[in-house]
Amino acid sequence: MSQKKNDAICSMDENFAQWYTDVCKKAELMDYSSIKGFIIYRPYGYAIWENIQNELDHKFKETGHENVYMPLLIPSGLLQKEADHVEGFAPECAVVTKGGLEELEESCVIRPTSETLFCEHYSKIVKSYRDLPKKYNQWCSVVRWEKTTRPFLRGSEFLWQEGHTIHATELEAREETLQMLNIYRETCKNLLAIPMVTGLKTEKEKFAGAEETYTIEALMHDGKALQSGTSHYFGQGFAKAFDMKFLNPSNQLEYVYQTSWGVSTRLIGAIIMVHGDNNGLILPPRVAPIQVMIIPVRSQVEGVLEKSREVEMQLRKAGIRVSLDDSDKTPGWKFSEAEMKGIPLRLEIGPKDIEHNSCVLAKRNDGTKLTLTLDESLSTNVQEQLDKIHEEMYERAKEHLKKHTTRVHSKDEFVDALENVGGFVQAPWCGDEACEQKIKEETTATTRCITEEQPGAEETCICCNKKAKHVVNFAKAY
Amino acid sequence: MSQKKNDAICSMDENFAQWYTDVCKKAELMDYSSIKGFIIYRPYGYAIWENIQNELDHKFKETGHENVYMPLLIPSGLLQKEADHVEGFAPECAVVTKGGLEELEESCVIRPTSETLFCEHYSKIVKSYRDLPKKYNQWCSVVRWEKTTRPFLRGSEFLWQEGHTIHATELEAREETLQMLNIYRETCKNLLAIPMVTGLKTEKEKFAGAEETYTIEALMHDGKALQSGTSHYFGQGFAKAFDMKFLNPSNQLEYVYQTSWGVSTRLIGAIIMVHGDNNGLILPPRVAPIQVMIIPVRSQVEGVLEKSREVEMQLRKAGIRVSLDDSDKTPGWKFSEAEMKGIPLRLEIGPKDIEHNSCVLAKRNDGTKLTLTLDESLSTNVQEQLDKIHEEMYERAKEHLKKHTTRVHSKDEFVDALENVGGFVQAPWCGDEACEQKIKEETTATTRCITEEQPGAEETCICCNKKAKHVVNFAKAY
Repeated sequence: MSQKKNDAICSMDENFAQWYTDVCKKAELMDYSSIKGFIIYRPYGYAIWENIQNELDHKFKETGHENVYMPLLIPSGLLQKEADHVEGFAPECAVVTKGGLEELEESCVIRPTSETLFCEHYSKIVKSYRDLPKKYNQWCSVVRWEKTTRPFLRGSEFLWQEGHTIHATELEAREETLQMLNIYRETCKNLLAIPMVTGLKTEKEKFAGAEETYTIEALMHDGKALQSGTSHYFGQGFAKAFDMKFLNPSNQLEYVYQTSWGVSTRLIGAIIMVHGDNNGLILPPRVAPIQVMIIPVRSQVEGVLEKSREVEMQLRKAGIRVSLDDSDKTPGWKFSEAEMKGIPLRLEIGPKDIEHNSCVLAKRNDGTKLTLTLDESLSTNVQEQLDKIHEEMYERAKEHLKKHTTRVHSKDEFVDALENVGGFVQAPWCGDEACEQKIKEETTATTRCITEEQPGAEETCICCNKKAKHVVNFAKAY
Repeated sequence: MSQKKNDAICSMDENFAQWYTDVCKKAELMDYSSIKGFIIYRPYGYAIWENIQNELDHKFKETGHENVYMPLLIPSGLLQKEADHVEGFAPECAVVTKGGLEELEESCVIRPTSETLFCEHYSKIVKSYRDLPKKYNQWCSVVRWEKTTRPFLRGSEFLWQEGHTIHATELEAREETLQMLNIYRETCKNLLAIPMVTGLKTEKEKFAGAEETYTIEALMHDGKALQSGTSHYFGQGFAKAFDMKFLNPSNQLEYVYQTSWGVSTRLIGAIIMVHGDNNGLILPPRVAPIQVMIIPVRSQVEGVLEKSREVEMQLRKAGIRVSLDDSDKTPGWKFSEAEMKGIPLRLEIGPKDIEHNSCVLAKRNDGTKLTLTLDESLSTNVQEQLDKIHEEMYERAKEHLKKHTTRVHSKDEFVDALENVGGFVQAPWCGDEACEQKIKEETTATTRCITEEQPGAEETCICCNKKAKHVVNFAKAY
């Protein structure tokens, strides 16, 4: 990691929370609005989200999903149709009571999530097995009135996608749930350079109304986990509440099997806290709005700006997202700005470089520099460096995850690992919600997901010492 | 126009309004939700919107605009800062009075438009002429509580983009206003095959808070006009209300000059009512989610399905949006579905065609058929047909517009043209709002926009007979 040179942000080692909000603001990702928890996504932050959207949208369509747009408002009565669901969401809803100067007969809530709307629509349009599956997705914002808010991590409004699918068979719905989990994991790996820990949520932690919730969990630099996306299998719960039936090939009425899945702008929070350092953001190249920032050195010298523009055009033609900073700021100022914004490569061109027909590339992720020849090979070489940076960032994050994952067998080991190592602590658990709750109260660690590992035959729950049922990833979490 | 063969929808000549909603529903563009005026954008309708978005978003970025996302909610106090603006919008607002089970201290409205939010943000982040211009755009939905609603044309919620820019000089802001108007007009021509009538709105019809509003107006098949997009020049009105100042190069504080501009899912309504016929939708090829529907004839015969799939792959590889209907419905049923959905080209392949190494193309826009050879030239020939269809649809719409535009010089001519020709009636007007209002009350026609034509020296207002100031496009409108 580069040495801290920038006083505009707090040191991450001194105060990680402050460092985080400093980076959010100083890298111009967001700004606060006058309503608590409702942030402004500034161009640089929104462009990251657009890159995530493009990649996911492509993957969704490739796997046969279609985009739709459902209403922003849900009648209060509709939200109440599925008991667990309303219990989970009603306390966080924003309620519209007036429209066009008149009191509404029935109040509405701004969607906190859209299961109920999709269910109502599906129940109208699906009659037969020939109409199945329906695999819809929606890009939108949702509102959940939160008491404690932090940019990208927990907001009263956030941007996300919500997929909602219905199927003729349980098998197909379960496959869909896992397929989407896999798309999330792979996208986080290949686009964001973030390794994800995946698995089932416990009963206590699952989504309100789901039969099973799968999660992707990332490990932040400070050793805390961040739930970064979920994929739910609903079984026929909502189908029964909303009367979503279809005629099967034997002409019998059956309830559909359902899934939903979503990721949000929380992923931007994950990028910041997995990759950032004391000089600001470090963006994985494939999601970076600007991959290469060209900074002319001694740009008043004849030929420097011309050459810089030439290089800019060459890289742009090769499909590289490049920008040229030809403002009248000093190169030092420009370097520091490019660092704060986490631009993967800084390309310096000065009179000396032009003389040697070369330019200097500085890698944001590890601070190293290299010299490249200014000829037709430049764009290929730059692209190679971008790919290399992606791999390096992914490997570094994986290493951090590995170092901060501890398998324990007793309460003492558990507490020790949690306090002295941090990250994920994998511990045997009896499956009892009371133990889960007790551990949370005593240590603030929560169950992130159930691992695939089977506990040993003799292993016992770290809390109650009864026979262990699962090995669970515990962590302190955002 | 093809003969009416489809009884699923009303005849457009009998009842145009019913025909319109029939097409919206039967072509599966939308569905109603349980809240009046909040519609569901179904996959086929939403895909049209995505194609419009892609094209416009590209144009916006090409001209230096950046996307952002502003909060969904506006504090009621903030909306009130600009007097004309709040007067225009407050009566249509949806009001949030509760959040997280508690009454809010200050109520919020769901954005009906976001000028106030952009102004507040700009006033915080802009200090110097070096920070200008700011050219932001946002894709989102807005809520305006409407009494009378119709799918895509007037909804309590609709999808749109809203551009908001601020500039250091009046000239630059005025250029921006016209540039965006031009982008709208060109996109409607090149993507939607719709010729637009453009011009300034009168004082009475301009946007709440704007100094000048430019509009694009399209002529529907029934002779009514549809305002399809607007571009506003704000001058410094909002700047003064929101204290948006910057230091100019001479180190003096100045107010910024501002614009905003938007188009919405109303464009989908325009497509339907400009191009559709009694068999349903007719989609311009460049915006059609499916450009070619392949329908195998006698698909049980060996080789037919294989050949169909081969052709599908060939066209897809050439970048044509193609779909193969290999369901077990009858070809006749499939033909009628493809017609209802307005798919530009239907490609039929049967055993006879394969024998002759050819296929039949049926053009949705004029019902004609042609035979193409099944070889490597097919995709080029299909692409040519798609371009030709676009041109034909545009020319037809232009012809319709021309036929239904009448220049008149007196009240009698005006009423005659309005009732017997329909469309735009261009008439001299004194510039007085009282005359505008009187004409509206007497004829229901409104001023759509001011033409660039100068009235003759002797010409007088068709209403009051005072000296004419402008020639105005009047029309009955949606």
